[in-house]
Amino acid sequence: MRIAIASDHAAIELKSELVSWLTDLGHEILDLGPNSSVSVDYPDYGYKLASTVEQGIVEKGIALCGSGIGISISVNRNPKVRCALVSEPLSAALSREHNDANVIALGARIIGIETAKSCVTTFLKTDFAGGRHNIRVEKLTNPQIEMN
Amino acid sequence: MRIAIASDHAAIELKSELVSWLTDLGHEILDLGPNSSVSVDYPDYGYKLASTVEQGIVEKGIALCGSGIGISISVNRNPKVRCALVSEPLSAALSREHNDANVIALGARIIGIETAKSCVTTFLKTDFAGGRHNIRVEKLTNPQIEMN
Repeated sequence: MRIAIASDHAAIELKSELVSWLTDLGHEILDLGPNSSVSVDYPDYGYKLASTVEQGIVEKGIALCGSGIGISISVNRNPKVRCALVSEPLSAALSREHNDANVIALGARIIGIETAKSCVTTFLKTDFAGGRHNIRVEKLTNPQIEMN
Repeated sequence: MRIAIASDHAAIELKSELVSWLTDLGHEILDLGPNSSVSVDYPDYGYKLASTVEQGIVEKGIALCGSGIGISISVNRNPKVRCALVSEPLSAALSREHNDANVIALGARIIGIETAKSCVTTFLKTDFAGGRHNIRVEKLTNPQIEMN
């Protein structure tokens, strides 16, 4: 699968570990940075990731920062992208089944590397359930749809 | 404090418990619904909550759904609102200190009532740290600010 990954300076180590692991698994990884520990602003990288997913350059995205909160908020500013901040695999599964999430966000200071890998594995292998969830996902993509 | 709360049908019990508890603590709670277990679309309630926070009708918001994912994505479609999905108090604290989050999202099927209360307590009492975090929050509010 083609997957883009982006972080801030607090998560470059986790990013690097996930890039190696996913590459070894045969995925094609687009690393959007940063590539040093110099302090950066997470929205810059979140917006770049969201735009890369929106344009269809990749199928899925992985967003990382210290807590995962800041980068997930920035990715979700783009209505064509649905970013789920998770800290365990059940939420990673639900994000795909119910929300058709195309980006997963993880907090490098909150969860360990094996939990992160487990969340990503579940996120990549779980399908959207469709059905009653379709209209909800459509409302996330088109916020102007009327309340019913 | 004036606080708005909204959910979907999967989280009405958690909503009801939090409303009683926060009211007993002396907060003024605006319950935006839903008020029955009939199936609803979480984006409708997420957008209503975001708009209520944006307009300054309340100081803070609480967003609930089964996993917390769908409602948090919908709240974050509004660039004036910063919604943090959390499952433990450390993330609730970081969401205030680093991201100046004005909405907290919780997953009713993911965490128990006491963890939810602990997250909300921390969220309500923790101040934004400002400093280097200001420009990042500004970029979340004004996505057109240039990358640096």
